Amino acid sequence: MSTKNLIFIVLLLFVPVSIAAHFLEWGSVTVFITACLAIIPLAAWMGTATEEIAVLVGPTIGGLLNATFGNATELIIALVALNAGLVEVVKASLTGSIIGNLLLVMGLSMFLGGLRFKEQTFQPVVARSNASAMNLAVIAILLPTAVNYTSQGIEESTMQTLSGWVAVVLILVYGLTLLFSMKTHAYLCDVGEAENESSSEGHSEKPNGLLWTVVLLVCTLLVAIESELLVDSLEEATASLGLTALFTGVILVPIIGNAAEHATAVTVAMKNKMDLSVSVAVGSSLQIALFVAPVLVLAGLILGQPMDLNFNPFELVAVAVAVLIANSVSSDGRSDWLEGTLLLAAYTVLGLAFFFHPVMEAMG
Amino acid sequence: MSTKNLIFIVLLLFVPVSIAAHFLEWGSVTVFITACLAIIPLAAWMGTATEEIAVLVGPTIGGLLNATFGNATELIIALVALNAGLVEVVKASLTGSIIGNLLLVMGLSMFLGGLRFKEQTFQPVVARSNASAMNLAVIAILLPTAVNYTSQGIEESTMQTLSGWVAVVLILVYGLTLLFSMKTHAYLCDVGEAENESSSEGHSEKPNGLLWTVVLLVCTLLVAIESELLVDSLEEATASLGLTALFTGVILVPIIGNAAEHATAVTVAMKNKMDLSVSVAVGSSLQIALFVAPVLVLAGLILGQPMDLNFNPFELVAVAVAVLIANSVSSDGRSDWLEGTLLLAAYTVLGLAFFFHPVMEAMG
Amino acid sequence: MSTKNLIFIVLLLFVPVSIAAHFLEWGSVTVFITACLAIIPLAAWMGTATEEIAVLVGPTIGGLLNATFGNATELIIALVALNAGLVEVVKASLTGSIIGNLLLVMGLSMFLGGLRFKEQTFQPVVARSNASAMNLAVIAILLPTAVNYTSQGIEESTMQTLSGWVAVVLILVYGLTLLFSMKTHAYLCDVGEAENESSSEGHSEKPNGLLWTVVLLVCTLLVAIESELLVDSLEEATASLGLTALFTGVILVPIIGNAAEHATAVTVAMKNKMDLSVSVAVGSSLQIALFVAPVLVLAGLILGQPMDLNFNPFELVAVAVAVLIANSVSSDGRSDWLEGTLLLAAYTVLGLAFFFHPVMEAMG
Repeated sequence: MSTKNLIFIVLLLFVPVSIAAHFLEWGSVTVFITACLAIIPLAAWMGTATEEIAVLVGPTIGGLLNATFGNATELIIALVALNAGLVEVVKASLTGSIIGNLLLVMGLSMFLGGLRFKEQTFQPVVARSNASAMNLAVIAILLPTAVNYTSQGIEESTMQTLSGWVAVVLILVYGLTLLFSMKTHAYLCDVGEAENESSSEGHSEKPNGLLWTVVLLVCTLLVAIESELLVDSLEEATASLGLTALFTGVILVPIIGNAAEHATAVTVAMKNKMDLSVSVAVGSSLQIALFVAPVLVLAGLILGQPMDLNFNPFELVAVAVAVLIANSVSSDGRSDWLEGTLLLAAYTVLGLAFFFHPVMEAMG
Repeated sequence: MSTKNLIFIVLLLFVPVSIAAHFLEWGSVTVFITACLAIIPLAAWMGTATEEIAVLVGPTIGGLLNATFGNATELIIALVALNAGLVEVVKASLTGSIIGNLLLVMGLSMFLGGLRFKEQTFQPVVARSNASAMNLAVIAILLPTAVNYTSQGIEESTMQTLSGWVAVVLILVYGLTLLFSMKTHAYLCDVGEAENESSSEGHSEKPNGLLWTVVLLVCTLLVAIESELLVDSLEEATASLGLTALFTGVILVPIIGNAAEHATAVTVAMKNKMDLSVSVAVGSSLQIALFVAPVLVLAGLILGQPMDLNFNPFELVAVAVAVLIANSVSSDGRSDWLEGTLLLAAYTVLGLAFFFHPVMEAMG
Repeated sequence: MSTKNLIFIVLLLFVPVSIAAHFLEWGSVTVFITACLAIIPLAAWMGTATEEIAVLVGPTIGGLLNATFGNATELIIALVALNAGLVEVVKASLTGSIIGNLLLVMGLSMFLGGLRFKEQTFQPVVARSNASAMNLAVIAILLPTAVNYTSQGIEESTMQTLSGWVAVVLILVYGLTLLFSMKTHAYLCDVGEAENESSSEGHSEKPNGLLWTVVLLVCTLLVAIESELLVDSLEEATASLGLTALFTGVILVPIIGNAAEHATAVTVAMKNKMDLSVSVAVGSSLQIALFVAPVLVLAGLILGQPMDLNFNPFELVAVAVAVLIANSVSSDGRSDWLEGTLLLAAYTVLGLAFFFHPVMEAMG
């Protein structure tokens, strides 16, 4: 058994612990931390199960499955938080996921990979094409904020309508990028042994479809339960830890939700498979911006918890800055440890800025 | 006769119709729409006539002619609107022209071209050089807005003076880019059979100078008349259609003024001449920013309708965003249908944002 | 003796003149101008002395010496101004140095070099790597401003703490870039005969360590004295010349402090050594952002003149714009006179904007 799986099994103990902490009222900080830890292995196994099933059902449906469930953990946490009315935390976790994938995940990959290999290379065409899609996504989800910020205020219902239409455009674009990368230009986007690599130990035999479907369902259910615990305890726990809702949403929640991607991207970078590593980090950001965010906007309308795309302006600055520096570092198709350091430093500085950002009364 | 010319001749019927609509008081909406339609063929023929005369007078004077009259339609509409005091509409149409050329025209070209050809290429050196000039232009016309927005207000006369000096710098830079592309580095900027292509059917015989001069004069006169009708009816018509002056200026007016460039850029893209297509779209934006905008600032001083470069901040955001994504898509010298889609999606999202942007009292 | 040295010796006469002007009370304008002129040769000789000593002590310590004392003149002027409480002038001179190096120095180099050579090339890898570091630096020093601007105000003490932490991150990154360029990836960053070129006439014999150490100490002392005169007279002199403190800090002070780099970068560009020229301009900006600015923040805490990283938002715009266009021009590893013109035009437009920017009450 690999070290990774051993760690995951230990972390799995936090599932019963967190539930006990909730019912025995061990305090919101305990519930929050144990729920966070419990989600990490569940998210990882959901990812593995999705990929195993994807192998079984063939490239097209498998690709769609990966594209839809790839960020399932984040989507579940966000839906639970949205349903509980924590709209600002949900928005913050979206920007935080984008920032975290582009700076923390890609930065760690380039840094640790760069310590082993003097120079690493990856396909610049894919990096640039992704950069353009990322630019569009960021522009789209942040324009409503700009509309509000550059006018004498916009009515809430108008903001909802605008956000809804923007969400529709983004989902359409997401569908077209899938069509592009899986059908018309698949050769461009082939980054090699993705499934083999990110699943734990490779598989010469055919995966067991029933087994993995059960794993997927059980993990999804447990993630949903742990998300309830996490969301319930979030406000009280973070307040008693002296953290703002903004910082929690932007920095803490995404690290938990993306732990699996972090592990995969860093592992493959250290095996010098930078194409796959960059693709995981940027692909995950793209999925958040082009799929998770618009789905949440539309879900908000259904749940009666209207979520618009009117972000805190500093989140706008942070995402713009993250995309800018990630593009600048990745556009030439090569990386070294200094480029990784620059991304990590940018993440640190953004983290400091969010930590000290005064809480707005609108938050939380 | 080509389909394009047939359409143009039919549209020409709107010249008398719009004049009738004005004098017989058929309502401002009718006048506005018919004037819009009438301008499209006139603009196209002005373009053709300019190019035919340019062939006749030789490369240097011809190049200057193209560089000066290339956006004549937009310039005439803007001058008429400026004279009528619609300063905010004029500014909006400038930003709208830049956005429209970079996103709508280039996006449609890459999308439709990309449906026919899996991958299209163009000279990245020219694309990058143009991108740098475009960056400068955008920076220059938007800095006065930033000065106003980041201070506790700037006096109107100071803003005028600043805008005037910036205009002078831009016109100088425009002159130098012409010198660069026509004299010192002409080999870099040669995009092939531009005149032949964009004029309708090619010409083995020498063009008839007198004929085309008459066409140019008549079309210019008619464009000026139709612009008067368009500007007179604009405010009432758009209000009764439920559109803001901002949306009209940014989205509607530029589509009419740039219809000819649209047709040319898309046509040549579908013949896989992407160098020319990108050059038309980016070149037209550059001309707006480096020549038309500063000329209008200086004309405003003469007309007693002072026009400064203090834009609505959302226009600033929109232009910055358009330039960013256009650079990101075009800097690698290759395009496919997805890149076209990204540009069109960006245009759509910007259009939605302008549509829902609350009217500022300063507008119209 | 070279023309350059002759000019410097003439300028040296302004050392006694400026001191006389101060004690004989010839007026603050006279003191200010003569002190400015006196600093130019002193700064140049400090640079030469640093490089000669660097040759003597070997590449590693020499590299560190260059990296630390490379912007010594600016650091001294800034420390004196900071000690006198002119915090806003210090901040303005930091942004002005970055802008000046990226636009004025690099622009003049590309323009004058481009007049001699049709096309000049330099290593794009280094240019891009520097661009990424520059992006990080700009992001880091400007995020505190963004925090303040996007909240309902941040307490001064929180801003201090945030700025202090950001300064620590930047100094760490600076150390790592030195490690990268001098140790682990030195081959990437080798731009050739830098020392030989930028020192005046080359040296076949071993430099005289004692002589140059004396020159360094005397020049440092004199720069410090002249900086006192410059800072003392600055406010009164610029006010009577009709200039704002912002304009003085952003445009005038950096031109004086960077005069030596200007001369070096332009001289080597005209010898077609663009790698070195770009490296001097960008390297100097990087040093300001990653080393001088954070050192001043930490020095402010010691001097009891708290200097945070909360800039005038227009400075933020200006630096972002300068980095954008400098990256856009330099990222392809080639330059011509038009690219130089674009940078100079951007500098001119920014200069105009700063000239007309209304003084905020917080300034000076």
